[in-house]
Amino acid sequence: MIGFEEYLRTHLPSAPSFHPTFDEALGAMLLAGGKRFRPKLLLSVVEAYTPLLVEGAYPVAMAVEMLHTYSLIHDDLPVMDDADLRRGEPTLHKRFDEVTAVLVGDALNTHTFYLIADAPLHNDVKVPLVKELAFNGGIGGMVLGQAIDCHFEGEKLRADEVDFLHECKTGRLIAASLKMGAIIAGLDQKMQEALYGFGLDLGLLFQIQDDIIDATQSRETAGKTTGNDEAKNSYINHYGLEGSIERADALSRKVRENLESFDAPLKERLEPLLTHYLNRHKG
Amino acid sequence: MIGFEEYLRTHLPSAPSFHPTFDEALGAMLLAGGKRFRPKLLLSVVEAYTPLLVEGAYPVAMAVEMLHTYSLIHDDLPVMDDADLRRGEPTLHKRFDEVTAVLVGDALNTHTFYLIADAPLHNDVKVPLVKELAFNGGIGGMVLGQAIDCHFEGEKLRADEVDFLHECKTGRLIAASLKMGAIIAGLDQKMQEALYGFGLDLGLLFQIQDDIIDATQSRETAGKTTGNDEAKNSYINHYGLEGSIERADALSRKVRENLESFDAPLKERLEPLLTHYLNRHKG
Repeated sequence: MIGFEEYLRTHLPSAPSFHPTFDEALGAMLLAGGKRFRPKLLLSVVEAYTPLLVEGAYPVAMAVEMLHTYSLIHDDLPVMDDADLRRGEPTLHKRFDEVTAVLVGDALNTHTFYLIADAPLHNDVKVPLVKELAFNGGIGGMVLGQAIDCHFEGEKLRADEVDFLHECKTGRLIAASLKMGAIIAGLDQKMQEALYGFGLDLGLLFQIQDDIIDATQSRETAGKTTGNDEAKNSYINHYGLEGSIERADALSRKVRENLESFDAPLKERLEPLLTHYLNRHKG
Repeated sequence: MIGFEEYLRTHLPSAPSFHPTFDEALGAMLLAGGKRFRPKLLLSVVEAYTPLLVEGAYPVAMAVEMLHTYSLIHDDLPVMDDADLRRGEPTLHKRFDEVTAVLVGDALNTHTFYLIADAPLHNDVKVPLVKELAFNGGIGGMVLGQAIDCHFEGEKLRADEVDFLHECKTGRLIAASLKMGAIIAGLDQKMQEALYGFGLDLGLLFQIQDDIIDATQSRETAGKTTGNDEAKNSYINHYGLEGSIERADALSRKVRENLESFDAPLKERLEPLLTHYLNRHKG
């Protein structure tokens, strides 16, 4: 069986036509690296409980990465964050043009659900997967969070509102990735919700660490446009660098404690992911 | 049972939060009228064969309208068609702002698939519906067509390329609407494909008529920004007004002939829709 990264590279979406660049642009941001954090979380759960279903879960893991990727493309647009660097390369609207970036984003958003519907899994599994991802990646999560983030730029939110913003924008898709793994693995409702809750904490931690990286690293190291977040409701702007690191460390302890309550095969798989991704600001 | 229009108005997507306008913006363009051509086509097929499933088909019909609506919102953006009027009202980015228009479009695109996954239909029906809509409304149709349309603005395409553009941009979503009705009604593959083919012709006819309206009517009558299509690969620009009316009339005859081959209950339902929508350029 091939690894997920190779699966992704050999299963890029394609829309061949006489348009000279659309097909290339469609896969460009998926190919441009990225941590693959969300698909790896999803696949960890499937691997831990139902290793025979991992290959069937690949298109679903790719769907989660695709939805995340479209959101980065649209977030980078001049009308949003106006970023020129992402994943160490020019953003899509810089490499092609703005129209292409809007449309490739739209196409990836839609195609996400094609991938799930087309996955070699039972229909009774695929329908709840579509529902979970469409809610947490849409009006019940990511898009709502981005709308709040953009609208309140330059306006200071309350602490609970900042948490809600980032839970929506980042946490719920990460939480959904874990829950979707649990749905594929056929875990019960209780375990699905436990993983979702664990994912919310993880997502918040991930976001705080992103803010810390943004505040402390150069764009060359971070691989994206950094340091233009003064007006944003970031954790740095609310808690300062010291306070953010403290909050990250406290959340990190909570996440690790919850991790201890999971079954060994799951713990084993999530542990290295957490170590790898969640100590980024320390080095 | 309530009618589809009332269903839509009482089932608007909602994302309540402390964001002052996002929730309102989310439903604004769905409420702003529109012909509801695509959902009516879908529901006609379901009504004709399986009237008991019509209520279950409402969320799917709404999903098709929602995907169409997001595409209008994004097409109207300054970076695309830069339109200020749609369905007789200010476009969404004029009424709110560009960020809101991008994000509401994204949210509706994603939520389309939530609606299907949440519909009171069998999972074995919902999965092919998701697949059909995601393909024809995405890289296999609408978005690809829009990308071609935008890219070749100001550059004259060949006649077969113009047909491909409009088949993708308009025809395939209309065709998919009919086929999705057939999937819900449990019609066989042959009938599904017959309706899809009929929909492609209908979509092309619809597009040519739209071009004719655009060329001949004021924006007040059309309810949208008109007459800014000189550089577009429209039928008017390829065949002229006379030629476009001729092509529309020939296509109209073909569509009516094919309509004759359908079962009486289906013919009865599609006939008034065609008469209503397809004689628009005649006044």
